[in-house]
Amino acid sequence: MTPPPAVTAAILVIGDEILSGRTKDKNIGTIADYLTAIGVDLREVRVVPDEADAIVEAVNALRARNTYLFTTGGIGPTHDDITADCVAAAFGVGIDVDPRAKAMLLERHKPEDLNEARLRMARIPDGADLVPNPISKAPGFRLGNVFVMAGVPAIMQAMLDQIGPTLETGAKVISETIEAGNLPEGTYAGDLAAIAKAETAVSIGSYPSMTPTGFANRIVVRGRDAVSVARARDAVIALVERLRGGTGA
Amino acid sequence: MTPPPAVTAAILVIGDEILSGRTKDKNIGTIADYLTAIGVDLREVRVVPDEADAIVEAVNALRARNTYLFTTGGIGPTHDDITADCVAAAFGVGIDVDPRAKAMLLERHKPEDLNEARLRMARIPDGADLVPNPISKAPGFRLGNVFVMAGVPAIMQAMLDQIGPTLETGAKVISETIEAGNLPEGTYAGDLAAIAKAETAVSIGSYPSMTPTGFANRIVVRGRDAVSVARARDAVIALVERLRGGTGA
Repeated sequence: MTPPPAVTAAILVIGDEILSGRTKDKNIGTIADYLTAIGVDLREVRVVPDEADAIVEAVNALRARNTYLFTTGGIGPTHDDITADCVAAAFGVGIDVDPRAKAMLLERHKPEDLNEARLRMARIPDGADLVPNPISKAPGFRLGNVFVMAGVPAIMQAMLDQIGPTLETGAKVISETIEAGNLPEGTYAGDLAAIAKAETAVSIGSYPSMTPTGFANRIVVRGRDAVSVARARDAVIALVERLRGGTGA
Repeated sequence: MTPPPAVTAAILVIGDEILSGRTKDKNIGTIADYLTAIGVDLREVRVVPDEADAIVEAVNALRARNTYLFTTGGIGPTHDDITADCVAAAFGVGIDVDPRAKAMLLERHKPEDLNEARLRMARIPDGADLVPNPISKAPGFRLGNVFVMAGVPAIMQAMLDQIGPTLETGAKVISETIEAGNLPEGTYAGDLAAIAKAETAVSIGSYPSMTPTGFANRIVVRGRDAVSVARARDAVIALVERLRGGTGA
């Protein structure tokens, strides 16, 4: 097992459309890649519907046990966009139209077009910092350790790019992938477990996938200590080569 | 709001590889589509790492408040495959090699190849029913209201196809999509909220997406009562046509 990492994160995806299958989420994978690259350990993901109780409960559960929580979705102008109100409720703070956010909306909309619905997008919980939205202007925000982002992937990405440099980060995880190809997992599982048990500073996973010609298995060694990762990687390579009847046999 | 549906479900995705971003989950969308089609309401999704405490906690939280829980991942032969043990722990039941599961593995492996690692795939919690795996034989299982499936999408799909007909299902959700095109959400949000407030038997969502030429917005009306859905749909169509300066203006 990897020792407890210093900087952790959770993602909360908010939206009926993901749970109905109508929209296929792309943000989880994008954020996961991003956090891994900067040394933040993604620990948990949840997807909840557009319902206040579910959102507030998830926000409070996830922000309490992680360094950061990232939410996506539910910050548009329509009645089903309730993320900002729910985050305010989760923190027990007020929420109102924020002059800074309203000014951002006025970069895109004429004052006479800034109707009640659009002003919803300027409702920001008290004490939050804004995350500018270069695409459609309606901002995300940060309150405490919670970052609230849009659900549209291009806008989420633009917000994440701005948030990233502000994050505290931990030691980056070094990841080494060993291709086991069509070598069955069952042939190496026992010896792999022994390596995993000996190398306490790394985590080792075996990931089968299917191709048109059969299984294609990969073994991934991950950890924050370069020496341990390299030693475990070499042990796995030797194991795979031995089983293939190669040099180590 | 839709009245509380009779049959609900949650998904628990188990695997470090999803949280690191190395593998992009495809199972959530597949299961969401499947459940929606048969009238089961997906209420929540969680993704957790290959860690016993996290898996047991999530299994118990999700099975307690849903009709069904579907898990994916962590049922292979390697040391990081701990789902079956965690489900047994969550239910407080024993786990051991199941003769029925072993017989399934022997359809693929010679007896002399059925080593300790492969036999791990025949470890099934006491009292569980098996879900056959037509592709690589190692079965999934059902224990109480929890269905344990493989993480490899093709195998997960094969298991889901067998599980589906055994599920209790509710009234199917009828879904109507109205294309709002590049009509800005902010122009229709107020009137849409009024329709949503009046039509208490349906849920109405507005979903922006971006195309190379700008926003492409969709309004989705969902519910189990055909008359209510049709009435709300017609109201939304009239709203969109009016705003476009069309027939309803």
